[in-house]
Amino acid sequence: MKIDDNFYMKLAIDEAWKYQLLTYPNPAVGCVIVKDGRILAIEAHKEAGMPHAEINALKTAFLTKESNSLLKIKNDSTEIHRFLMENHDGFFEDCEIFVTLEPCNHIGKTPSCAKLLSILKPKRVIVSVEDPNKQASGGIETLKNVNIEVIIGVLKKEGENLILPFKTWQNKTCIFFKMAQTLNGMIDGQISTHRAKLYVHTIRDKIDLLMVGGNTVRIDKPTLDTRYVFGKDPDVFIYSKNKVFSQNIPLFNIANRKVIVSDDLFKLLDYKFIMVEGVYNLLNILKDKIDFIVLIVNPKIRSGINAINDINLDFEILHENYLGDEKIVFLKRKYI
Amino acid sequence: MKIDDNFYMKLAIDEAWKYQLLTYPNPAVGCVIVKDGRILAIEAHKEAGMPHAEINALKTAFLTKESNSLLKIKNDSTEIHRFLMENHDGFFEDCEIFVTLEPCNHIGKTPSCAKLLSILKPKRVIVSVEDPNKQASGGIETLKNVNIEVIIGVLKKEGENLILPFKTWQNKTCIFFKMAQTLNGMIDGQISTHRAKLYVHTIRDKIDLLMVGGNTVRIDKPTLDTRYVFGKDPDVFIYSKNKVFSQNIPLFNIANRKVIVSDDLFKLLDYKFIMVEGVYNLLNILKDKIDFIVLIVNPKIRSGINAINDINLDFEILHENYLGDEKIVFLKRKYI
Ligand SMILES: [Zn+2]
Ligand SMILES: [Zn+2]
Repeated sequence: MKIDDNFYMKLAIDEAWKYQLLTYPNPAVGCVIVKDGRILAIEAHKEAGMPHAEINALKTAFLTKESNSLLKIKNDSTEIHRFLMENHDGFFEDCEIFVTLEPCNHIGKTPSCAKLLSILKPKRVIVSVEDPNKQASGGIETLKNVNIEVIIGVLKKEGENLILPFKTWQNKTCIFFKMAQTLNGMIDGQISTHRAKLYVHTIRDKIDLLMVGGNTVRIDKPTLDTRYVFGKDPDVFIYSKNKVFSQNIPLFNIANRKVIVSDDLFKLLDYKFIMVEGVYNLLNILKDKIDFIVLIVNPKIRSGINAINDINLDFEILHENYLGDEKIVFLKRKYI
Repeated sequence: MKIDDNFYMKLAIDEAWKYQLLTYPNPAVGCVIVKDGRILAIEAHKEAGMPHAEINALKTAFLTKESNSLLKIKNDSTEIHRFLMENHDGFFEDCEIFVTLEPCNHIGKTPSCAKLLSILKPKRVIVSVEDPNKQASGGIETLKNVNIEVIIGVLKKEGENLILPFKTWQNKTCIFFKMAQTLNGMIDGQISTHRAKLYVHTIRDKIDLLMVGGNTVRIDKPTLDTRYVFGKDPDVFIYSKNKVFSQNIPLFNIANRKVIVSDDLFKLLDYKFIMVEGVYNLLNILKDKIDFIVLIVNPKIRSGINAINDINLDFEILHENYLGDEKIVFLKRKYI
């Protein structure tokens, strides 16, 4: 295997995928720092409000030199920026910095990464994809202006796949479909383990609307909350022509939750980040409206309920993560 | 992400999986060489008769120092051994060598890797699993005898999973099941792309017996050859109570092929490395006799033929590789 720019960028991309969706409304970003051939850091942006991938990686890299540095106890982005600006002492000048997305150039919740890098002066900055967000872009220019070598487009396709969710929620309402199945596509009965449920609750905490089918509500009587992670319970949209539901179903009795019962998909546009939890019927209805799919796969082969007759969809696998013994597969529609 | 022994061993394991089954009768082995913190090589054993993983990695690592060395044109294992013994000049003394399996200690088709390493004297040798093959083992002792630090058991579970196929074919007849399906488990109609077919032909070239169901033969009239890779066509075992088949079916007309029509599975024991190509019926019949499954997944959701009623199997995912847009999933039965 060749150990080249692609190799290091792949490490950055894989690290970023571990926090996919959890960084909303920010993009998932990964960063690898290589100093004189040594990998010092493989980090990612983990959550909005927390340090960007570059900052996490710069901190980890610097700590390999001085593991007892005061930097160790600094977790706030602004403080890490300030510390590194004052104490870098040329440490990063022979570093190569691989980042999956163009470093940000605006000062938002945190100071700009491009600005910090332009002071630390790494030998090279290698970027997979340029920032599609006009507000943040200009980072590459900032680096070039101080004569840092910038390489753009390394693993561009993989980098684009990584920010596909970000690009959708940035420009419009982002709607993704979550489904759980066995290895051979069965969707009935008990599928997910506790760990997979915990993951689903973690995502529910990030979205602002959860959509489910009316039949699911009537049959499963779900709560649709985030109790496993003590999160924020999203509003619920029940897709149903029949508007009558027993108000004893637990999902109706969650504090600070709005429940919409409707078959008018136009109402979804009042929200920004929507997860649909459903199976094949709902997938087929929404297939042209969803931006990507999060599929949880339990490695079991058994008989049960599978695809409906009129479904026929092709996908591209964006990425896969392990979740204990199960898999999370991120898919996008492919038109062939 | 922590950059530690586990990190480097994972790179070695992933590289080895790329050649899984193709190294028969040898084990799949990967090797990573890190010199003074820099990754110099990530290599694997690719095919029986070709250099072991360690030799490929030592060669690649040495060439990073002298890219125009005569070593570049040496591909034969014995020649690489000899070259490195004579020319290493202490190059490997500050290297750490990560290898997924205990280095071999016997002199077979190639000189022993442990012997070579004991001369090159790396700082550390990190081993995932000890060699289960008594004939080859003793490598760790050989290294320790010259005071090389040896660490054993790094990512042991992953290392064991990697050699699961090897362990089965070493001790007995190895029988694995190959199946192709859509993302939701449909097995009818056209599934695999040309690239997946090429992969299947590459595996057929390695096995000595291909087993298929009688119905498949009657309906599909297959050739079951290796024409895409110009390989060796395996013998065929048609599992069928009814012994009558039209001899016009192409598989019967392959030179130097024996075709067995039988429902006596005991006859399989005359062979060493058997692939079963089938679907759920055959899987259910053979479920207690197969050592692992190679599942090719085309990322499509559609209706079609799925699991039979009486199947109910749990699996552990050993590993997954991409094959263009498709996936190869290696599975083993899990008993819960
Ligand atoms: Zn930033
Ligand atoms: Zn060897």
